[in-house]
Amino acid sequence: MNTARSNAFYAQSGGVTAVINASAAGVIETARRHPDRIGTVYAGKNGIIGALTEELIDTGEESADTIAALRSTPAGAFGSCRYKLKSLEKNRREYERLIEVFKAHGIGYFFYNGGGDSADTCFKVSQLSQSLGYPLQAIHVPKTIDNDLPLTDCCPGFGSVAKYVAVSVLEASLDVRSMAATSTRVFVLEVMGRHAGWIAAAGGLVESQGIPVVVLFPEIEFDKDRFLARVDALVKQHGYCSVVVSEGCHHPDGSFLAEQGTRDAFGHAQLGGAAPVVAQMVKDALGHKFHWAVADYLQRAARHIASATDVQQAYALGQRAVELALEGRNAVMPTIERISDAPYRWRIGSAPLEQVANVEKTMPREFINADGFGITDACRRYLLPLIEGEDYPGYQGGLPVYATLRNQLVARKLPSFELA
Amino acid sequence: MNTARSNAFYAQSGGVTAVINASAAGVIETARRHPDRIGTVYAGKNGIIGALTEELIDTGEESADTIAALRSTPAGAFGSCRYKLKSLEKNRREYERLIEVFKAHGIGYFFYNGGGDSADTCFKVSQLSQSLGYPLQAIHVPKTIDNDLPLTDCCPGFGSVAKYVAVSVLEASLDVRSMAATSTRVFVLEVMGRHAGWIAAAGGLVESQGIPVVVLFPEIEFDKDRFLARVDALVKQHGYCSVVVSEGCHHPDGSFLAEQGTRDAFGHAQLGGAAPVVAQMVKDALGHKFHWAVADYLQRAARHIASATDVQQAYALGQRAVELALEGRNAVMPTIERISDAPYRWRIGSAPLEQVANVEKTMPREFINADGFGITDACRRYLLPLIEGEDYPGYQGGLPVYATLRNQLVARKLPSFELA
Repeated sequence: MNTARSNAFYAQSGGVTAVINASAAGVIETARRHPDRIGTVYAGKNGIIGALTEELIDTGEESADTIAALRSTPAGAFGSCRYKLKSLEKNRREYERLIEVFKAHGIGYFFYNGGGDSADTCFKVSQLSQSLGYPLQAIHVPKTIDNDLPLTDCCPGFGSVAKYVAVSVLEASLDVRSMAATSTRVFVLEVMGRHAGWIAAAGGLVESQGIPVVVLFPEIEFDKDRFLARVDALVKQHGYCSVVVSEGCHHPDGSFLAEQGTRDAFGHAQLGGAAPVVAQMVKDALGHKFHWAVADYLQRAARHIASATDVQQAYALGQRAVELALEGRNAVMPTIERISDAPYRWRIGSAPLEQVANVEKTMPREFINADGFGITDACRRYLLPLIEGEDYPGYQGGLPVYATLRNQLVARKLPSFELA
Repeated sequence: MNTARSNAFYAQSGGVTAVINASAAGVIETARRHPDRIGTVYAGKNGIIGALTEELIDTGEESADTIAALRSTPAGAFGSCRYKLKSLEKNRREYERLIEVFKAHGIGYFFYNGGGDSADTCFKVSQLSQSLGYPLQAIHVPKTIDNDLPLTDCCPGFGSVAKYVAVSVLEASLDVRSMAATSTRVFVLEVMGRHAGWIAAAGGLVESQGIPVVVLFPEIEFDKDRFLARVDALVKQHGYCSVVVSEGCHHPDGSFLAEQGTRDAFGHAQLGGAAPVVAQMVKDALGHKFHWAVADYLQRAARHIASATDVQQAYALGQRAVELALEGRNAVMPTIERISDAPYRWRIGSAPLEQVANVEKTMPREFINADGFGITDACRRYLLPLIEGEDYPGYQGGLPVYATLRNQLVARKLPSFELA
């Protein structure tokens, strides 16, 4: 435990979200309230890479207003990266470099804001600091739109994507319903979630609004005949239907729906995603006119329709991470513990990083209904509180006002370092 | 001019929008304020088809609250259709059927809410009613996300799509900027607009937020080498860039970018749109990792991020249509006349339908910058007021509350009719 005053390092890791900056605001604002214990919060430029290359952003240069504005700014304000440190055995020099940089800049607190991989890195860094005798408290701040971290009821970033998907499917479905008499009858939306169907499940929420919807999960092997029969039945009953397909939806042999094996004139693999494949399948078998959309980054960046619950939790977890550090904790991650569904009540707990790293939480089977094409009431009870509430950014001239940081780097103190 | 009290017919036509129901609210609420002149407003079930098949929705059965809620409900609440009446010469019986149905139900006002094709139909109906000696006032209420109607400064539906596109490109671009050090460097968003680049132009608005963006318009023939050079320059300068490609972007020979001529194993044409084609082109030539999205219906149904200006104008045009009818006008369309850009001031004018029908307004060349990949200041001045202001729907349980109508049909009085 750091009893003397020391600096902190904060880094964003992996795919960014609509609310990861809210966690950053939680970390920085809380640290600023404890100037006796925490000096400057340095943020890694482009995540952990910034620590390795000693590109440290001095967040002390940012005004209180700017840091507060992070709460309503999507994406990674300091830059993030997809950079997984190898195992300690294979690349010990990178871990040692981190400790060197931390030592050079008087950093005693390491806040790592990411998913499962970064929880693992965070854990390893904490272990190494112990074995090297350098006092460092490593706290992981959970973040992933995939909602696949264990030991926390949900993950910041997910609630906002879920809200975006539910709202988008509702709106597009009303559109299709309007046009179905003479035009489009089936609308297909492709959403993220390579391994876990949490995001796709959010599309299933519109069923309670009377919208006929088929959800294709990565957890359920795709069965073309049963899928087409389901679409056929829904279109016969309602005149139209929507399909929400996870990018991770796959055939029994493990190949993704998006992999059609087709090539263009230059030998490139087919460019489209799962949505056009599913749409064409419906057209060929049932003859319905279709439209399809691929939300891609739009879904995870959509701060304009963020869930208020999600924003609140993202901030609270950043805040709690600092408090845990000040309480002397190490190698832990603050978590969301659900107390009740309705009214929704939650509190913050914590989990040892050892148990978080590299465990992936997919949808429990009891959240997917019997036919595999929709969600159960239990799933609905789980999801609804997570999309509850709106937390709109400010607007000027028709566009959201998102924070722009100075992102000023502190002077280097060490020789340069080549990334592996 | 109808001096006695008569009923009105209202129909939604073509692709629906986030605000066409606001026009419906404007028509119905205004009609209800004139019970001495206007009896019941009947809405066509699925647009003009409902008039032909005598499926008339009695909007008098809907409460004042429900009609008011239409203002914040996307898509077509009564159903729309893609059904173009043939020329009078080729299919006179359909026009005559319309008059018969109108006569049978005491309809003296015809409000048609659509784009260029429906303006043409509306005009023909007004002409026929004159030649048949049946007093009918036909007023067209403009609507099209494509913003391609002449004689009006803008078209309801467009401002909201423009806002959706500008906000989405801004958010996704911040995402890419966060990730560009190690991952995605180019993000491509495909937007609607087969013939006119108005929607794509809205993506160009984010340039003033410091976002490097390339816009591909249908008005500018695609030049692969120049496009790649532009992307290359932007990525070298900024580390990343976004591309907004109109679905109507095409090669000099007229073929769309989306038409790759590739076939899958079953001989189907390539399924993807323009976005994956453009993204792959960048990857092949410049090696950048990419992501792409296709917004499709999400963009035109996105009532959750509608432009307040757009909602206000959509309502006002519906309202004015009824007032024009009460003033004895026929074969006209209320229009938006811009008085000034900043502060934005506008008023409602009107245009004769004869001049509206079948004229398509594409982007003026002076709205596209010299290199053809972005918008000019003049375009920015034109667009900004149209995305100004937020007009959020109400929410319950995390989802927008959109109106659900009873849509009760009135009893038929005529023999059934077979559509052509």
